[in-house]
Amino acid sequence: MNSAPLSGLYAPSLSLLTDLYQVTMAYGYWQQGMQDREAVFHLYFRRPPFDGGYAVCAGLAYAADWLENLRFSEDDLTYLGSLKSTKGAAMFPQEFLDYLRDLKFTCDMDAIAEGTVVFANEPLIRVQGPLLQAQLVETALLTLVNFQTLVATKAARIREAAGSDTVLEFGLRRAQGFDGGLSASRAAYLGGVDATSNVLAGQRFNIPVKGTHAHSWVMAFDDEPEAFAAYAKAFPDDSVFLVDTYDTLEGVRHAIKVAREMRANGHELSGIRLDSGDLAYLSREARALLNEAGFPNVRIVASNDLEENLITSLKSQGAKIDTWGIGTQLVTAYDQPALGGVYKMAALRKPDDSGWDFTIKLSEQLAKTSIPGILQVRRYETDKGQPRADMLYNTAEPLPENLILVDPLDATRRRPVRPDAAYRELLEPIFRRGKLVHALPTLEESRKRAHREVLSLDPSIRRFLNPHTYPVGLEETLNTFRTNLILEKRPLRLA
Amino acid sequence: MNSAPLSGLYAPSLSLLTDLYQVTMAYGYWQQGMQDREAVFHLYFRRPPFDGGYAVCAGLAYAADWLENLRFSEDDLTYLGSLKSTKGAAMFPQEFLDYLRDLKFTCDMDAIAEGTVVFANEPLIRVQGPLLQAQLVETALLTLVNFQTLVATKAARIREAAGSDTVLEFGLRRAQGFDGGLSASRAAYLGGVDATSNVLAGQRFNIPVKGTHAHSWVMAFDDEPEAFAAYAKAFPDDSVFLVDTYDTLEGVRHAIKVAREMRANGHELSGIRLDSGDLAYLSREARALLNEAGFPNVRIVASNDLEENLITSLKSQGAKIDTWGIGTQLVTAYDQPALGGVYKMAALRKPDDSGWDFTIKLSEQLAKTSIPGILQVRRYETDKGQPRADMLYNTAEPLPENLILVDPLDATRRRPVRPDAAYRELLEPIFRRGKLVHALPTLEESRKRAHREVLSLDPSIRRFLNPHTYPVGLEETLNTFRTNLILEKRPLRLA
Repeated sequence: MNSAPLSGLYAPSLSLLTDLYQVTMAYGYWQQGMQDREAVFHLYFRRPPFDGGYAVCAGLAYAADWLENLRFSEDDLTYLGSLKSTKGAAMFPQEFLDYLRDLKFTCDMDAIAEGTVVFANEPLIRVQGPLLQAQLVETALLTLVNFQTLVATKAARIREAAGSDTVLEFGLRRAQGFDGGLSASRAAYLGGVDATSNVLAGQRFNIPVKGTHAHSWVMAFDDEPEAFAAYAKAFPDDSVFLVDTYDTLEGVRHAIKVAREMRANGHELSGIRLDSGDLAYLSREARALLNEAGFPNVRIVASNDLEENLITSLKSQGAKIDTWGIGTQLVTAYDQPALGGVYKMAALRKPDDSGWDFTIKLSEQLAKTSIPGILQVRRYETDKGQPRADMLYNTAEPLPENLILVDPLDATRRRPVRPDAAYRELLEPIFRRGKLVHALPTLEESRKRAHREVLSLDPSIRRFLNPHTYPVGLEETLNTFRTNLILEKRPLRLA
Repeated sequence: MNSAPLSGLYAPSLSLLTDLYQVTMAYGYWQQGMQDREAVFHLYFRRPPFDGGYAVCAGLAYAADWLENLRFSEDDLTYLGSLKSTKGAAMFPQEFLDYLRDLKFTCDMDAIAEGTVVFANEPLIRVQGPLLQAQLVETALLTLVNFQTLVATKAARIREAAGSDTVLEFGLRRAQGFDGGLSASRAAYLGGVDATSNVLAGQRFNIPVKGTHAHSWVMAFDDEPEAFAAYAKAFPDDSVFLVDTYDTLEGVRHAIKVAREMRANGHELSGIRLDSGDLAYLSREARALLNEAGFPNVRIVASNDLEENLITSLKSQGAKIDTWGIGTQLVTAYDQPALGGVYKMAALRKPDDSGWDFTIKLSEQLAKTSIPGILQVRRYETDKGQPRADMLYNTAEPLPENLILVDPLDATRRRPVRPDAAYRELLEPIFRRGKLVHALPTLEESRKRAHREVLSLDPSIRRFLNPHTYPVGLEETLNTFRTNLILEKRPLRLA
């Protein structure tokens, strides 16, 4: 083991960020001469997270960066060359390692823009190109997109609950690894929080950073008023006093005392923070104390394992909270810490290049059976840009004149598309033959898109409890094709 | 935003991996001239994860690496210098940035070795040194230790359920960021899994890597037997066929067909993998088919959202599974994705250097009230090395002759320590004045320790449902001191 596990980490190569089976399959394809057969894979999830009605797409910038830098370094190749079979032989022959040395990503990749709202079964990413490469990138794409989509969605829900209140993310200490913290801060900002406590995220992604002091600050002084006064001296215009180190309402009184001194010197206390106890009761009491003392503009920040349902509950109890500090629940997506996105092969060029074989993964559950084709997602919208329904269709086949959407879980549920319905195609070209052809939006742009997109959804889809299912249908000829392919691939069993 | 978020990441400096409030407090302490006051902080958790009876300590090697490299780069300082107060002034004056430029970690740090079993309230890490520094490192220590301790503990539980079966970790695709995957693979190996699919973890930490093929491999061939045969050609001695792409038991029959061809060529099929459906039923059927066909040594690998309780249930149903593939549930610690460790100040040198002020954070709940002192953890053991009870005591005060352990949650529960009881002290010196003074064990050594330590616990503490609470007591004079400090700090309210 490397005794300094962080030193120089992730530079120069992250290309081994993959499951071994991607490399063993790569070798198998290479050995079979199948490495350049053109294949199509889709990355999608089967159910929106948190029993919700939608997800907010995120992580594409990471994925694109990883793909652009996909190159096996000499260290990587030395390591792969050192792997042994059970019998002690080299797992991979030198010729294959030489092949990997020259490998670059040359696929086409289409993706849905970060910040777009997406639904079950919709490809967030479509990779088309040489089979070996299109397979090899699976793990990294899933790792990078699954998590950020999960956290962006959680952030959007928290934003929904908080309304126009300020929301701060400060989950780094409870994050899953340091990148679990850093990429969570990015995704949380994309999904709608206003700032982070994570300084590295601030530096790298230009996210506003916020933070004041911990309990230990108070404990380092003889008493609370002294601690508050010292902090106010350092940050006369940006002080938020944490008031619950010893006793919350005593702490509020001490904050008021120091706020008066600050005012006498021409400064105003920014806020107080409650981090424990009954936040509904304490925030109302604190608000009353502050208002009586002539500090109606001092903000009340609350934290302590908050998430969208607790925020909703506190608001319904009349809590007087202006700013929500969200940590663990957001950065780990505590109630569902994995999205469960998958990456499935959906088409493979015939060996004689005469066309496509469309491929399918069966399952006992129809919901887990994959969708064959080279898919595009078409979103039908109202004049006002409100999404009405999405259609998945196979771009390798001509579309029929009359379009009908079929529910992939219940073929008797169908809805025809009105001929003049406005729509947009969600998957956009990102890579062509391995070259980035799309200027990726800035994080701010993606954040604005997420905000706009979530608000464009009907409230029935955004609600937390039993949300309405947004209609995503398979174009009818695709559905028929898929059904026939299932019947063809599934062995008949006698009843 | 940086449009290439992965490029060059984490090199050269990770020093901004912190919450902003650590930096604002650092500035405040510096401004007050308190930066060098000697302080003591403890990192601990309040409840073992997963409603379990213990945790397995992990992450120290990362923490030590981070501390050794703690240095603000010019980029870091430029960023901090660019931060503005609400009024538009610089948040930090140049003199303070100059101070940070020269800052190195000069504290003492003691820690419990990775792989040790630990319990609620026990300091896994104790930092003693200049207040500013000891505070500044809080967030990174928590991030790096919380998560790895969580995952190592989950892995130990899964190992417990799996007994002597092989356990593989392959959660990278569902991990929380790429380091969420990498550090999870490390911690999972430390906690007891046998191998990982994560190639980067294999390379960096010398963890055995395993993996065979995905459903897409099968889908890339005309039929399943052809796919299996092609894979066997690439890995004649290390093939595990995934049999559920179309129909599991059909898949087993196809695997047998190819296994016969392999045997004819002098090779043996290693295993088959079941990834869906009723694993109890399918594994028994598969075992019967394989045995009948003369392949009793072909292993059966199972995967699909497995964790310790499912493994236990499958075993009790007579499932014929030799190898457990664990992904999402392990690397995200799905049922409790954060440990909730905290870092609290426990002592501060008096301004006149005449001794210590011991500090406490109060809470409405006694369990959340911190423990003052410069703590050590003493573990009393039987002759056979089985832990009997742990004692937290304040090293800054003399120990009384007669030692009595007091339950921190119920002072009426006391147990005297027999005078001749054998013990060891768990916190060991790691840094002295900022220098690493301890040769950190290799990952293999920590893994062996974890194995030994978990097995030394009474089964009643290791069980999953309502485990027995291992006794951790405060040494009586520490408990009395703490009680008095609580009474002193808590304002009296009339009933």
